[in-house]
Amino acid sequence: MSLRVQKFGGTSVGTPERVRRVAERIAKAYRAGHSLVVVVSAMGHTTDELIDLAHQVSKNPSHREMDMLLTAGERISMALLSMALEDCKVPAISLTGSQTGIITDPSHRRARIRRILGSRVRAALEEKKVVIVAGFQGVSENKEITTLGRGGSDTSAVALAVAVGADLCEIFTDVDGVYTADPRCVPQAKLWKKIPQDLMVELATRGAGVLHPRSVELAKQFNIPLFVKNSLKEESEGTAVVSRSDLQKGSSKASAKESRKVESERGMEEFQVAGVTADLSKILIRIELTRPTTLPSLWEAAAKNHLSVIAPFFADGKVSFFSDRDGLVEWHKNLEHLSLSGFVDSYKIEKDWVPLSIVGDRFSQDGAALAQVIEVLGRENIVPLLGTSSSLALTMAVRSDQADEGVRLLHREFLEGQKDG
Amino acid sequence: MSLRVQKFGGTSVGTPERVRRVAERIAKAYRAGHSLVVVVSAMGHTTDELIDLAHQVSKNPSHREMDMLLTAGERISMALLSMALEDCKVPAISLTGSQTGIITDPSHRRARIRRILGSRVRAALEEKKVVIVAGFQGVSENKEITTLGRGGSDTSAVALAVAVGADLCEIFTDVDGVYTADPRCVPQAKLWKKIPQDLMVELATRGAGVLHPRSVELAKQFNIPLFVKNSLKEESEGTAVVSRSDLQKGSSKASAKESRKVESERGMEEFQVAGVTADLSKILIRIELTRPTTLPSLWEAAAKNHLSVIAPFFADGKVSFFSDRDGLVEWHKNLEHLSLSGFVDSYKIEKDWVPLSIVGDRFSQDGAALAQVIEVLGRENIVPLLGTSSSLALTMAVRSDQADEGVRLLHREFLEGQKDG
Repeated sequence: MSLRVQKFGGTSVGTPERVRRVAERIAKAYRAGHSLVVVVSAMGHTTDELIDLAHQVSKNPSHREMDMLLTAGERISMALLSMALEDCKVPAISLTGSQTGIITDPSHRRARIRRILGSRVRAALEEKKVVIVAGFQGVSENKEITTLGRGGSDTSAVALAVAVGADLCEIFTDVDGVYTADPRCVPQAKLWKKIPQDLMVELATRGAGVLHPRSVELAKQFNIPLFVKNSLKEESEGTAVVSRSDLQKGSSKASAKESRKVESERGMEEFQVAGVTADLSKILIRIELTRPTTLPSLWEAAAKNHLSVIAPFFADGKVSFFSDRDGLVEWHKNLEHLSLSGFVDSYKIEKDWVPLSIVGDRFSQDGAALAQVIEVLGRENIVPLLGTSSSLALTMAVRSDQADEGVRLLHREFLEGQKDG
Repeated sequence: MSLRVQKFGGTSVGTPERVRRVAERIAKAYRAGHSLVVVVSAMGHTTDELIDLAHQVSKNPSHREMDMLLTAGERISMALLSMALEDCKVPAISLTGSQTGIITDPSHRRARIRRILGSRVRAALEEKKVVIVAGFQGVSENKEITTLGRGGSDTSAVALAVAVGADLCEIFTDVDGVYTADPRCVPQAKLWKKIPQDLMVELATRGAGVLHPRSVELAKQFNIPLFVKNSLKEESEGTAVVSRSDLQKGSSKASAKESRKVESERGMEEFQVAGVTADLSKILIRIELTRPTTLPSLWEAAAKNHLSVIAPFFADGKVSFFSDRDGLVEWHKNLEHLSLSGFVDSYKIEKDWVPLSIVGDRFSQDGAALAQVIEVLGRENIVPLLGTSSSLALTMAVRSDQADEGVRLLHREFLEGQKDG
């Protein structure tokens, strides 16, 4: 009998029939005695359709009204799910982000969660109700409706798990879990049963797609066991995202020692690759500053507009980083402004260069491994424009039309079969 | 009654009197019923003195003979410690790296551990002996004596803990534990009681100095609870380096939930800073390749010579990274060779630029935080030459004579008192 947060994405509640299936699944867990908080996204492509509608109505819709519009999406799905649950004889109540007390900063469209009050959630749980909470949305201290940005429902779910002290958080989606690469691109990709939190943060940040990076950050920081499961397959065990010590749980102490020994046969201090990703939803931005000291103005512009800055580096007054493709217009506006103000000398938004990354322990400090990456790619004429390496990931810029091939090559080299070291 | 690996560094066994004190401390743990494997470094500055001696004898001593020479250091300390233990009526046996079966790759002076056989260790433990193992040293598959590089004894200790299935590993040193900054530089620095493994890897890689980075990598990968303690203070609790889930242990479930709630008041998705480091033992290397495709030859040269490559990035055929100052001569030789072979167009070894880093969750994706760093430093005329940012750390190159001031400024800004966000 645990307290669980379950999150169902847009595809999982994409049709009335699917809403009923999800309700049945929830009802089963409820009857097994679990206390449940359920986070839902808007149905199917509702959010995209609403965005389209807005652009048909107005050339430049305000962010405030956009948030007002978009939050209608979850209002529909959560009310429907609550109805379906009542039909299953399961008492349920739906709550908006505001009713739940999901307090965010005031930035529309890309708000961050500050805290969750959650008193109505706790009260409803005590009345043995299933609490359906709208994902993706929150409310600022000034009672303005905000949204958390694309993929924000995952973040809502984990944040709620923290706030109500849940035992675990289950993310139901349309794939079986976390793979070593996107299985649509690499059929040989392997499903992870368990993956450590810190590597999952890197995979998610670099385009793994299954989980929103901010949700994994929260799960790591507050140590919420996170499960990714296929909502359409009841038997799916999925992937558990857990702390390094929980990786070994479930196995007895003796067998944990045994597995340590087996691993050490492979070379204790050798690198381990967890996955390869490419992220076509990103763009590369390259900037020449007028002086090195104008760098803060650039970061401040990013922060003020909540534009993401991924794998940034700077040298001699030049700056490079990746950001979200859907921030393209805002970046243009900001960089134009910074140019006119004399902070930025010149800039280039490279829409055709995307990040290709390899994630794992020790990989990116290993000179031989780094050399191998460049060679393997080079054999197929993939020449990264730039690259940067941290303790858990190597990220390069490659041409977007070569990204999938890059993933396949690196996956084959580092994750299929055994290589001589 | 646990199985523990304890490691005592050079300072802790620096004099005969200290060797006796360490023996008494070990004896106490032994009498409390613990099984003990003890890893020792060479006494005090023995290793440096032996290196000096070698250079007085030969202009260019071979790496093989250097390893032979240096490994005499631990031979002395471990034999002395074993004698002192026998005097305390504690049965003890000393074993060299080779006798222990610490198998490494064949690279002299900077070898990596492949695996540990450890049969003699296990046999001696069964005979209720304290097993004293020489740190820092190993043996290649060809029975050549190797050493693990500076700080290698920490790595020996954690690798042994993995191999014998120890419950924990204690690193005894001459400081109280892991601080938010080097307390010699920042008196206000705070001691961590517990710190997560992934952040400790970053701090160690970026110059925290207390633990060797490779040892923390191993502790993280195999989830060995790692304790850093002051060998001269018996009551010192020190710092525990643990997984994210073990961070909350010791507190009851209710209070873990409580602490989650308190944390969330600070803004769930706000960055958290774990520490600030500067590393004067590093140099900055900047290279222009003749063509982007010659990059592998550079990484291969680093790998072949086991030269470290820290926070590397490349763009448009230019490469920058940090490496160990004691690899200076080898870098010169390699880069000269790569120039002559037509791989490298030009290179610069910047001895006066060192890494200044700030480590923590979410920090380096936060535009506002990045801007603040550059501004705070700029106010004191510290202008980083370059910088690179990963999910857990921001690392910049600053002038070595400004590094300590940089640490103080960033520590004051991000770790002392509360800032408005």
